[in-house]
Amino acid sequence: MIVILKSGATDEQIEHVIERIEQLGHSAHLSRGTHRTIIGVIGDEESLRSEPLKALPGVADVIPVLPPYKLVSREAHPDATIVHVGSVPVGGGYLAMIAGPCAVESEERMVRIARAVRRAGANILRGGAFKPRTSPYSFQGLGTKGLEFLRTAGDEAGMPVVTEATDPRLVETICRYADMLQVGARNMQNFVLLREVGQTDKPVLLKRGMSATVSEWLMSAEYIASQGNSQVILCERGIRGFDSATRNVFDVAAIPLARQLTHLPVIADPSHATGRPDLIPSCALAAMAAGADGVHVEVHDEPEQARSDGAQALLPDQYEELFQQMSRLAELYQRRIAGPGDSSGPV
Amino acid sequence: MIVILKSGATDEQIEHVIERIEQLGHSAHLSRGTHRTIIGVIGDEESLRSEPLKALPGVADVIPVLPPYKLVSREAHPDATIVHVGSVPVGGGYLAMIAGPCAVESEERMVRIARAVRRAGANILRGGAFKPRTSPYSFQGLGTKGLEFLRTAGDEAGMPVVTEATDPRLVETICRYADMLQVGARNMQNFVLLREVGQTDKPVLLKRGMSATVSEWLMSAEYIASQGNSQVILCERGIRGFDSATRNVFDVAAIPLARQLTHLPVIADPSHATGRPDLIPSCALAAMAAGADGVHVEVHDEPEQARSDGAQALLPDQYEELFQQMSRLAELYQRRIAGPGDSSGPV
Amino acid sequence: MIVILKSGATDEQIEHVIERIEQLGHSAHLSRGTHRTIIGVIGDEESLRSEPLKALPGVADVIPVLPPYKLVSREAHPDATIVHVGSVPVGGGYLAMIAGPCAVESEERMVRIARAVRRAGANILRGGAFKPRTSPYSFQGLGTKGLEFLRTAGDEAGMPVVTEATDPRLVETICRYADMLQVGARNMQNFVLLREVGQTDKPVLLKRGMSATVSEWLMSAEYIASQGNSQVILCERGIRGFDSATRNVFDVAAIPLARQLTHLPVIADPSHATGRPDLIPSCALAAMAAGADGVHVEVHDEPEQARSDGAQALLPDQYEELFQQMSRLAELYQRRIAGPGDSSGPV
Amino acid sequence: MIVILKSGATDEQIEHVIERIEQLGHSAHLSRGTHRTIIGVIGDEESLRSEPLKALPGVADVIPVLPPYKLVSREAHPDATIVHVGSVPVGGGYLAMIAGPCAVESEERMVRIARAVRRAGANILRGGAFKPRTSPYSFQGLGTKGLEFLRTAGDEAGMPVVTEATDPRLVETICRYADMLQVGARNMQNFVLLREVGQTDKPVLLKRGMSATVSEWLMSAEYIASQGNSQVILCERGIRGFDSATRNVFDVAAIPLARQLTHLPVIADPSHATGRPDLIPSCALAAMAAGADGVHVEVHDEPEQARSDGAQALLPDQYEELFQQMSRLAELYQRRIAGPGDSSGPV
Repeated sequence: MIVILKSGATDEQIEHVIERIEQLGHSAHLSRGTHRTIIGVIGDEESLRSEPLKALPGVADVIPVLPPYKLVSREAHPDATIVHVGSVPVGGGYLAMIAGPCAVESEERMVRIARAVRRAGANILRGGAFKPRTSPYSFQGLGTKGLEFLRTAGDEAGMPVVTEATDPRLVETICRYADMLQVGARNMQNFVLLREVGQTDKPVLLKRGMSATVSEWLMSAEYIASQGNSQVILCERGIRGFDSATRNVFDVAAIPLARQLTHLPVIADPSHATGRPDLIPSCALAAMAAGADGVHVEVHDEPEQARSDGAQALLPDQYEELFQQMSRLAELYQRRIAGPGDSSGPV
Repeated sequence: MIVILKSGATDEQIEHVIERIEQLGHSAHLSRGTHRTIIGVIGDEESLRSEPLKALPGVADVIPVLPPYKLVSREAHPDATIVHVGSVPVGGGYLAMIAGPCAVESEERMVRIARAVRRAGANILRGGAFKPRTSPYSFQGLGTKGLEFLRTAGDEAGMPVVTEATDPRLVETICRYADMLQVGARNMQNFVLLREVGQTDKPVLLKRGMSATVSEWLMSAEYIASQGNSQVILCERGIRGFDSATRNVFDVAAIPLARQLTHLPVIADPSHATGRPDLIPSCALAAMAAGADGVHVEVHDEPEQARSDGAQALLPDQYEELFQQMSRLAELYQRRIAGPGDSSGPV
Repeated sequence: MIVILKSGATDEQIEHVIERIEQLGHSAHLSRGTHRTIIGVIGDEESLRSEPLKALPGVADVIPVLPPYKLVSREAHPDATIVHVGSVPVGGGYLAMIAGPCAVESEERMVRIARAVRRAGANILRGGAFKPRTSPYSFQGLGTKGLEFLRTAGDEAGMPVVTEATDPRLVETICRYADMLQVGARNMQNFVLLREVGQTDKPVLLKRGMSATVSEWLMSAEYIASQGNSQVILCERGIRGFDSATRNVFDVAAIPLARQLTHLPVIADPSHATGRPDLIPSCALAAMAAGADGVHVEVHDEPEQARSDGAQALLPDQYEELFQQMSRLAELYQRRIAGPGDSSGPV
Repeated sequence: MIVILKSGATDEQIEHVIERIEQLGHSAHLSRGTHRTIIGVIGDEESLRSEPLKALPGVADVIPVLPPYKLVSREAHPDATIVHVGSVPVGGGYLAMIAGPCAVESEERMVRIARAVRRAGANILRGGAFKPRTSPYSFQGLGTKGLEFLRTAGDEAGMPVVTEATDPRLVETICRYADMLQVGARNMQNFVLLREVGQTDKPVLLKRGMSATVSEWLMSAEYIASQGNSQVILCERGIRGFDSATRNVFDVAAIPLARQLTHLPVIADPSHATGRPDLIPSCALAAMAAGADGVHVEVHDEPEQARSDGAQALLPDQYEELFQQMSRLAELYQRRIAGPGDSSGPV
């Protein structure tokens, strides 16, 4: 940690800062420059992180030199983590190809879509039973009924399933049905929920918050890991931007950046990132080319009838075509898409 | 609602759109322009809002003409709502002057700060017992013990108290101690929590999310109101921006804008908006001048010892000076700061 | 300047960094922490600023400790600069109350509006002759004819005038008509234009760019000052944001922040910041309360006929009412609005 | 164009709006909904675009239905435009592989880098002679000397060259040396410069402004085209964001979006978008996968000595490796990289 003093900082103030650093069990290394004095703090940065050194008189700024996360940091764990969603391995050369409707709407439709996306090549099925909706008057999901339909569809099509958890009180119930729990963008800093999913033994799909830095996103993964569950898959899904032409800004650089900083798998969700079926394929391919460990796409067989986000869903045929293109990139990059029953070692 | 068709939309597509609108119980009013055809949809917009009309072939865009919120809308309820926090009226000419430390740290300190801010003129006391922190390794608050200390401090200083709720399972407990529940910026779209606080009989202080539009913020208030609780105070606390010189961007225009759109009181939190004690006073005064129904400021008597956000707290003396300046503006604007025991009619 | 090394930096790399720093005429002060090594660079930071130290192997980050501007810095020049626009003093307790239409449209209208805003209390007249428009098909201004009409209107109403310069080749011409040159938001980093206006003897009104940090804004002022002209007035006019409810986000905190960092006057333009006449008054008052050295407002007597930005203009009556409210704040803050013929010493 | 009236709009106001529309030579088509009245305006939208209809009493909003650009619009010109840079075709299946140093520093270095990037496969050489720098104290480029060195290097390596124009007075001079003129991000809305380059017969590389919407970017291309020069290549180079981990946010979705809206080629600049050599390759590949018509990369042979942006340059070897990977994607996508002397028809 580096403490930068104000240009007019007095000797007394400097001494007070040093004293405080030593009180906290660290040593201080003073460096007087031509215009400014800085103090290098020597010792375990973590224990100092929440101390309000910036509030000390004469202090201009306090600059940490280490990332604030540890368990999820690649610096500490260089090897890629492979997360198993049901029997499907993700990370370390294996791709998560997640597809399915925004919301579970009926058993019949769910099974139909599941079979279609499995046939196209997807290896994990998605479907929302508890939907976080901006309006209290919108369809909020089928709830537990939806979980049942999703499970049935997954079983019929032979795929593990992922669904969103929004209520800490329902995490246990969802765990009975789902192979992976999703924490949505709006809940990325719902620390109560993060702790709850961190206490389960299910992998967690953690979406990036709409205005979260990559570091904050990793801190949320750290929350989950700090509870004992380090089976976390990160998912970039677009950040808020100023151009209303797309729903969000797909921050493709966050994928290689996050993969550099953490050993966890990092995938992309071009459906929410763009909100436009005409841009989803290009962005899905961009994600693959940037090194993503998988792609999450919303698919619906009758978008005009969809009860949530219909306007951004691909048709099964469109998904199949996209999957073919993604496969070719996977091959070029020597990545592998493991089928649900097929988890032999990484390439 | 207006449906704009693509330039190449066929007659068949146009007919299909009209058919669908009529199926949904509305009538369609076609208008063929020189380059584009538009369809005015006549009927209750609300019932159409979640229909994916945009997914129909040939549709370029769907534009709602009404705001998506109703209960909190000023269009529907022109008179300002006065929310009572304990005995303190807020809104309709009455100002909420909320002050206190970021986190409750000890009973002694809490009482000391409570007395100091009450003496300065504050009429509502704040203090966090359950702290949402970016890092799992930071101080997470004293929990129920913190609630007790806060209540004691409020009682000693004769002030109603507000504290943050983060867990739907603890809302009931917090209601036993607090006069107002705060929903923090990170939880603005935690719809589970919004529903839970909407079922209590306590007023709710709803902070704006870091990247929420004013419309989304009002929708979150609508969630609370839709559960039967319309005692909501909105609080602008800064939005995410690109300049790291301040913690957030204080969106002062959101205050008059929100006050135009809703009948609920709208206050400002310059402490989180700027994150810098040297800018808090200017921004507090700006909020007052822009018509805010109150100002929320973090105050700590020993910022260097604070266990959370110490670097952005004002000292009690600084708060007192600021309060004097805010009072002069209140007078100029004919606003009134009701004392806790003093709730005679509005000015 | 502080150089932070990567966690795995080798001794050789560290030595190479030190060598390079010494080659460049500075001394290096090494500080080995528990996890990272940092190097304090001692000497004149300015001369190092453009050296790509970050490109040296083993370097993780390079952190400057001084602001990059000097001539405009308050650290170097603590006293407020008073800029004279014609005979009107601005800064150091004197307010610039600038008003007028977006574009000069005709001599008659220009004179009429000038008289109206002067009567209301404005002390500087604005009007665009060369308009930077997003579309090549929009009205581009009356050009030199517009300059003449503006000058006439200023003379008739007894006010100094400000108009925008967009072309370095026309700066000399504009100087013959105007008392102050405006550099618009879109040209804030048009360094060619900045240098050109920096070589005139006219004060410059420098608008903040739509996505410029406060530091970049001050650097643009530094460009002008570096050419010998330090008569610069800074103007906050809103930054780009994600909420389309307002044209821009009015960054009111940038006003006290900039005033802290520079000795130059800092004013606000709520017309462009909000783009909505219903929000302009609140934001103008917020700016005053936050300490702005003046307010710039667009006024038009027949907005429906305006050839540019009509929808955001105030009517002369609305401006007069707003002016009254701003005056009361000016009084409260002990600021003075000098009339054009009236430049006795500051309060 | 659609005019939406306020909920309380009176019949008189509605009639006044209709009258005004008819005065302007259009017809109005009234549609009274349950809550709001809307008016479809029939006729040429362009001629109405700058009329301040929004300023009419009773009007809530005015919504254009057509994009504001025409010459550059793909709706009007479905076939891809192929721009020739020297003899290198770009667009319509041909890729612009632009590489070179940020600034021209010396003839010797320029020739060396030119040969290296040509050897790697690049087909257009870049190098800045007039550098727009945030600070007046940074290296501003070698000026005309730099143009000479760039030309020599291009000739030696057998490549057409591109360099930035910042001053309208120097456009003619630059045209004598360069095969393509670059308009930088900071000058995207420097309309004076756009008009000037629009009057030359050289192709123009138009970078997207840091906070420009895709529509505004295309409007700037329209400015150039409106002067008679429609040889424009658009370049996405990152937009301003809130996460300081990268220099900008690389908006990869803007590439397919722009390619849908315009017939002009659209390329990417991952060097400025990320500002980090470790992320440039991933983002370059993402751009290719998203359908970009080329990639612009900064290359320097001794980044530690670079006089501008050294920390974001790739080494020639790194560029060569990246080029190999990009070539494989080009092949997969059936795109072709024409050599400078090799402009046979598109694939």
